[in-house]
Amino acid sequence: MPVDLNSDLGEGYREDQPDEPDGSHSDKHGPGTLGEDDALLAVVTSANIACGFHAGDASIMRHVTAQAVSNGVAIGAHVAYRDMAGFGRRFIDMEPATLQAEVMYQIGALAGLARLAGGTVSYVKPHGGLYNAIVHHEAQAAAVVAAVAAYDPSLVLMGLPDSAVLRLADAQGLRTVREAFADRAYTPVGTLVPRTEAGAVLHDAAQIAQRCLAMATGEPIADINGDPLVLRPDSICVHGDTPGALGIARAVRAALEGAGIELTPFARAE
Amino acid sequence: MPVDLNSDLGEGYREDQPDEPDGSHSDKHGPGTLGEDDALLAVVTSANIACGFHAGDASIMRHVTAQAVSNGVAIGAHVAYRDMAGFGRRFIDMEPATLQAEVMYQIGALAGLARLAGGTVSYVKPHGGLYNAIVHHEAQAAAVVAAVAAYDPSLVLMGLPDSAVLRLADAQGLRTVREAFADRAYTPVGTLVPRTEAGAVLHDAAQIAQRCLAMATGEPIADINGDPLVLRPDSICVHGDTPGALGIARAVRAALEGAGIELTPFARAE
Amino acid sequence: MPVDLNSDLGEGYREDQPDEPDGSHSDKHGPGTLGEDDALLAVVTSANIACGFHAGDASIMRHVTAQAVSNGVAIGAHVAYRDMAGFGRRFIDMEPATLQAEVMYQIGALAGLARLAGGTVSYVKPHGGLYNAIVHHEAQAAAVVAAVAAYDPSLVLMGLPDSAVLRLADAQGLRTVREAFADRAYTPVGTLVPRTEAGAVLHDAAQIAQRCLAMATGEPIADINGDPLVLRPDSICVHGDTPGALGIARAVRAALEGAGIELTPFARAE
Amino acid sequence: MPVDLNSDLGEGYREDQPDEPDGSHSDKHGPGTLGEDDALLAVVTSANIACGFHAGDASIMRHVTAQAVSNGVAIGAHVAYRDMAGFGRRFIDMEPATLQAEVMYQIGALAGLARLAGGTVSYVKPHGGLYNAIVHHEAQAAAVVAAVAAYDPSLVLMGLPDSAVLRLADAQGLRTVREAFADRAYTPVGTLVPRTEAGAVLHDAAQIAQRCLAMATGEPIADINGDPLVLRPDSICVHGDTPGALGIARAVRAALEGAGIELTPFARAE
Repeated sequence: MPVDLNSDLGEGYREDQPDEPDGSHSDKHGPGTLGEDDALLAVVTSANIACGFHAGDASIMRHVTAQAVSNGVAIGAHVAYRDMAGFGRRFIDMEPATLQAEVMYQIGALAGLARLAGGTVSYVKPHGGLYNAIVHHEAQAAAVVAAVAAYDPSLVLMGLPDSAVLRLADAQGLRTVREAFADRAYTPVGTLVPRTEAGAVLHDAAQIAQRCLAMATGEPIADINGDPLVLRPDSICVHGDTPGALGIARAVRAALEGAGIELTPFARAE
Repeated sequence: MPVDLNSDLGEGYREDQPDEPDGSHSDKHGPGTLGEDDALLAVVTSANIACGFHAGDASIMRHVTAQAVSNGVAIGAHVAYRDMAGFGRRFIDMEPATLQAEVMYQIGALAGLARLAGGTVSYVKPHGGLYNAIVHHEAQAAAVVAAVAAYDPSLVLMGLPDSAVLRLADAQGLRTVREAFADRAYTPVGTLVPRTEAGAVLHDAAQIAQRCLAMATGEPIADINGDPLVLRPDSICVHGDTPGALGIARAVRAALEGAGIELTPFARAE
Repeated sequence: MPVDLNSDLGEGYREDQPDEPDGSHSDKHGPGTLGEDDALLAVVTSANIACGFHAGDASIMRHVTAQAVSNGVAIGAHVAYRDMAGFGRRFIDMEPATLQAEVMYQIGALAGLARLAGGTVSYVKPHGGLYNAIVHHEAQAAAVVAAVAAYDPSLVLMGLPDSAVLRLADAQGLRTVREAFADRAYTPVGTLVPRTEAGAVLHDAAQIAQRCLAMATGEPIADINGDPLVLRPDSICVHGDTPGALGIARAVRAALEGAGIELTPFARAE
Repeated sequence: MPVDLNSDLGEGYREDQPDEPDGSHSDKHGPGTLGEDDALLAVVTSANIACGFHAGDASIMRHVTAQAVSNGVAIGAHVAYRDMAGFGRRFIDMEPATLQAEVMYQIGALAGLARLAGGTVSYVKPHGGLYNAIVHHEAQAAAVVAAVAAYDPSLVLMGLPDSAVLRLADAQGLRTVREAFADRAYTPVGTLVPRTEAGAVLHDAAQIAQRCLAMATGEPIADINGDPLVLRPDSICVHGDTPGALGIARAVRAALEGAGIELTPFARAE
């Protein structure tokens, strides 16, 4: 059984800004986040790429899509509320018709940049506040599903297990992918332990890698109470936006590869 | 010989905003600009649609692309500098690589919305400050050409006659379209009389219609000095953003149709 | 008893954009909304001026503050969620601390422009989605109150009668102003009839003027059922963003003046 | 003779964003740039704080102004072109009247946030593309001077020696401050060696500290040719946006303090 690793990319500092002629300030971009993105693209198989609504811009999208194509990593549109100031983390009570249009806009924009590298967008993963809202918000969930179906019904939609958006997408005939989180604790019923509770976020690379190996092979992990819980995600989300997170992602990949598990994108990578 | 009429669309007020529950203010959108856009789409054959960088947003793009498809009007990406505050009118000294990426982003975004109506983007027209810059600015002109070619080399590029951007596009093998302006005076050598000079902008609908008819049939118009000047534009730009402008556009179409001239988009409309 | 008329201003088209050298498109600004703003500033006594978060920009703010000073109209900061694309009409579930900071930012920005005309900001009126949210949302209401108090406790806060924000502002010791809407129907308990219901919005200038006169003199108006209802607003909100609305606003002022009622801003105008 | 150290602050990651309830992604903010800002505020005496046009937002401005007040560091408005996507580094050919308004907007906005901490804006330093433009661009330079004078003529204006903006500011009667760059090489006539040339940027902390000590005491530094050059800056600009830069800034301060030189803001800090 192959497994997919996904990560959020293209959320870091800008590139392609010229140095100023008289150097009135230093370069903010240096060996920064996009460098970490490059490293992570050697680890994951699917890249959720910010589309300029919560982070990223056309230059970053070009860079990351090109790196994804080079690495054989599938390109996903990480669509979000239009909220750069809030990093897309805040619920916006917008009209479903507007949301549908904005999701189509973002997919198209990323597809535009992917063409430069000869790649295509093969899946969609909602981000942040939108991701959370459409776990329960039926009208916004339906708008996201309608956007994906109208853009291209062969696109895959990634989301949280048992969410409204994936239920509606399944009913619509879209292909869906359920994800688990490598570094998060789970309740006995398989939902995430809220971050505000103790133990919600795991930090030990070896432990996280071991849990991901269990998820990938259908073995139980320990839930927050220490009892066995079987998760069968279609994709596992890892982070890479800090040096520590990158190390964890590498440990996860190494553990999976060491066990002979094939790492393959769930959707077409080109 | 058929002729094409183009106009800038999708630059007006937003749609799809809900009424507020307690109505703390009135509706800004009413019978506004987008209504004028709808009227203009019965007049023109090619629609330059704002892509959210100088005006417009995903909702407006959806609305206008759907209306364009209904009217058999070709859809063009009216790409611009990212400058909503300045309506895209100001030169921005940006890196060519960044500009190329931003143009591809905009074409893709509009293509994303056009899909909802079953339409496609068939041409690109730079807007405002960018349109003017790439008459002379070789590096930015080359970036726009590279963007169009990398996005889809079958896209048509519209611009000013004798501009750097069209020269480079021709050299690249792109199809190009030269436009004239219905309501502008021309110098003896066929360039526009600057707006700051007297007589630069024409206001009489009958006169403007007559000049467009001359342009379409290869007859001379009067230049700013009253001498004959032959313009052979591939497309004629009309405006529709004021009630008067809409009346002029209608007069132009009526004059052309009255003379038995076919109005047809230069690029695929669907 | 003097009465105050307030209106939303500075939400229209931009000014101060240069004509393009070669006139690639027409002037979107013409005899547009800011001209209507100028007309309305001869009618109202208090101007709620957009601060660049839902509409407006620094150029517009400079223009409108200067006109307000010329007309002896009080300057209010029409603070909003940061949501230009949605015209500030959508609820955003943001952190109270962030909201407080963004309100202070907007007040300060408007105060910066008002200085050019020798004016000052004398009150704050939340806009759109924020206005509606803080009728009930205690945490966001408290954030707005905290922003006003921290910026300058002598600022007046305008809002909906019986709203959380005005209750908290009163408790904080701020001066508050309750407004009624000239063109809206009221329920028997004095709340607004939702716009989605028949008869929610009034359109007859004479009827609206008569109701405003009643409000100003403590006489009852007819509620949605035709029964008498006494409203005693500190300010009456009129609209001016359409030609019809401007006519209504003028009718309201004429009716009040005709009855010998003094029109005076509730806050300092300079 | 006391000396002032200034640095660009508030350009980093956002604060005050809530964790997401179900943790769909990690925290981008962690031990990031604003932490480095806090460290730098123990080193410098004047803080050039981004005002939301090229970087920063209201939350960041509140945080940095509060830290500046705590550290006795003077608050400067780091005003910029409105260009978040380009980090304010690109020249924008905007109307002087618009630029004046936008500079006043930014100063006012920062002043709004500074109030929360009991601080005030005491100087203005243009940023990036604007900083460079107004070395030579007379009309934009005059607009910046007009903005500062209209906002508050007691504000100090910081810029490049021999720039148009400082010449015009002097003529206007504003107090001006000339800065030198700690880590940049100088030509024999005292202008900056362009970054594109070898040796333009210095990296050795001890060398940089020694040069700053020379600048502060009126001793010559070595120009790019190794010949002596005397600079007498009113303020020295240091960077802090990388760990290395922070170390250099600390070395500069230590060298100055070790030589008994007083570090004092040139403008009021409160």
